[in-house]
Amino acid sequence: MAIVILPIPGMPSVRPGDDLSALIASAISMAKVGVKPGDVLVVCQKVVSKAEGRVVALGDVEPSALARSWAERHDKDPRLIELVFRESTRIVRMDHGNLIVETGPGWVCANAGIDQSNAVAEGLVTLLPVDPDASARRLRASLRGHLGVDLAVVITDTFGRPWREGQVEFALGVAGMAPVDDLRGTQDMNGHELGVTVIGVADEIACAAGLAMRKAAGIAAVLVRGCEIGPEPEEAGQRGGAAMIRPREHDLFR
Amino acid sequence: MAIVILPIPGMPSVRPGDDLSALIASAISMAKVGVKPGDVLVVCQKVVSKAEGRVVALGDVEPSALARSWAERHDKDPRLIELVFRESTRIVRMDHGNLIVETGPGWVCANAGIDQSNAVAEGLVTLLPVDPDASARRLRASLRGHLGVDLAVVITDTFGRPWREGQVEFALGVAGMAPVDDLRGTQDMNGHELGVTVIGVADEIACAAGLAMRKAAGIAAVLVRGCEIGPEPEEAGQRGGAAMIRPREHDLFR
Repeated sequence: MAIVILPIPGMPSVRPGDDLSALIASAISMAKVGVKPGDVLVVCQKVVSKAEGRVVALGDVEPSALARSWAERHDKDPRLIELVFRESTRIVRMDHGNLIVETGPGWVCANAGIDQSNAVAEGLVTLLPVDPDASARRLRASLRGHLGVDLAVVITDTFGRPWREGQVEFALGVAGMAPVDDLRGTQDMNGHELGVTVIGVADEIACAAGLAMRKAAGIAAVLVRGCEIGPEPEEAGQRGGAAMIRPREHDLFR
Repeated sequence: MAIVILPIPGMPSVRPGDDLSALIASAISMAKVGVKPGDVLVVCQKVVSKAEGRVVALGDVEPSALARSWAERHDKDPRLIELVFRESTRIVRMDHGNLIVETGPGWVCANAGIDQSNAVAEGLVTLLPVDPDASARRLRASLRGHLGVDLAVVITDTFGRPWREGQVEFALGVAGMAPVDDLRGTQDMNGHELGVTVIGVADEIACAAGLAMRKAAGIAAVLVRGCEIGPEPEEAGQRGGAAMIRPREHDLFR
């Protein structure tokens, strides 16, 4: 009952307007790994952002006064800081040169997830997808057309964490599976109610895929096979990567 | 180049004083998965704690005044709260019935990682190992004797995170591999210095193993095969799970 993490090589460089599902389906076919119901396709955020045109030329950005003053004090590009502000709904920490913000549906991350590395071209940066759950749903529907199989889809990005060194993968968008495994009410082998009650399965799948994404350059898609995944919840609030964001009123660290 | 996550079934219930490495080596042999250099053996904290006798009878614990008052207000067992206090070096948050503390070499987690589920017997709880890096090193050395192969060893526990719903696995103890992958100074495919600079590889391996640990009841050990792991750093401060704990002076969230 092994779980297998299959990198999908052979994806071309993705550009705004590309049909990402066609590129992924073609790479999967070339990789000759097959696809099976229950497989989870993990795709890195950057290719989703590029295909969706979430790309900005820094030269077009006019930095505000605050962006200029912060950038100057911390030796950053003021246009990049301005973009971080524009993508943020709230600044969580602005300290020691770090900008930890809330962005999108409520992710807390550094620099609003804006990244210069592996961008489309010099002077261009990628923003996070506007709604990665919608992106995951669309990708899933198109892949069903290409491959004839219902995969689950997880769109991931690499974020830092409080308390720990090292960044890891997180699930931003999720479609076709339960994002968390809710064990509340179940008992352990001694009949005790389980202390660990809700497992962040989609984040664990993201991390597992991350191990394969970094083994070789340019691996933007990974199949995770043999995982136990729950069916997509019917209630909208429990669906998708958005359901993995802890509401601010229950969060002790915002 | 797939990565394979192999659950190791067949471990008996572990009791204080048991030779954990012998139990694991025997289960690995029975599982007929072989072991290869580069394999990472992931072991859950609870069996390590049990084998090391980190087990406490709640009946022997005399709660302090603060433990009694907090427990009464939040409907908890005052003896368990007292144990949490005893295992803590610092309370990080004490709010909404949650106790987030610093424990061991500096982990930040709920209830000092003390768990009633799957304990040895009714009324007994397990504490985290005193020094999981030392536990991992000992386990690695003994397994080399049993199996004739140098495995890397990761000891994990399930913790919650700020900002996110769902608990995931974390690497507490690490031996025989680099706990993080330091990419600082390396460049992406366009020649940009990588924005993501240090990857928490051991935590990603812990999460990957977690997917297999929860597929069946009682899976306490998992082999992760085909990962890219770096050699164990020579400098003591960069070695082990302890090196994954962010120093408090660099942490914006403690």
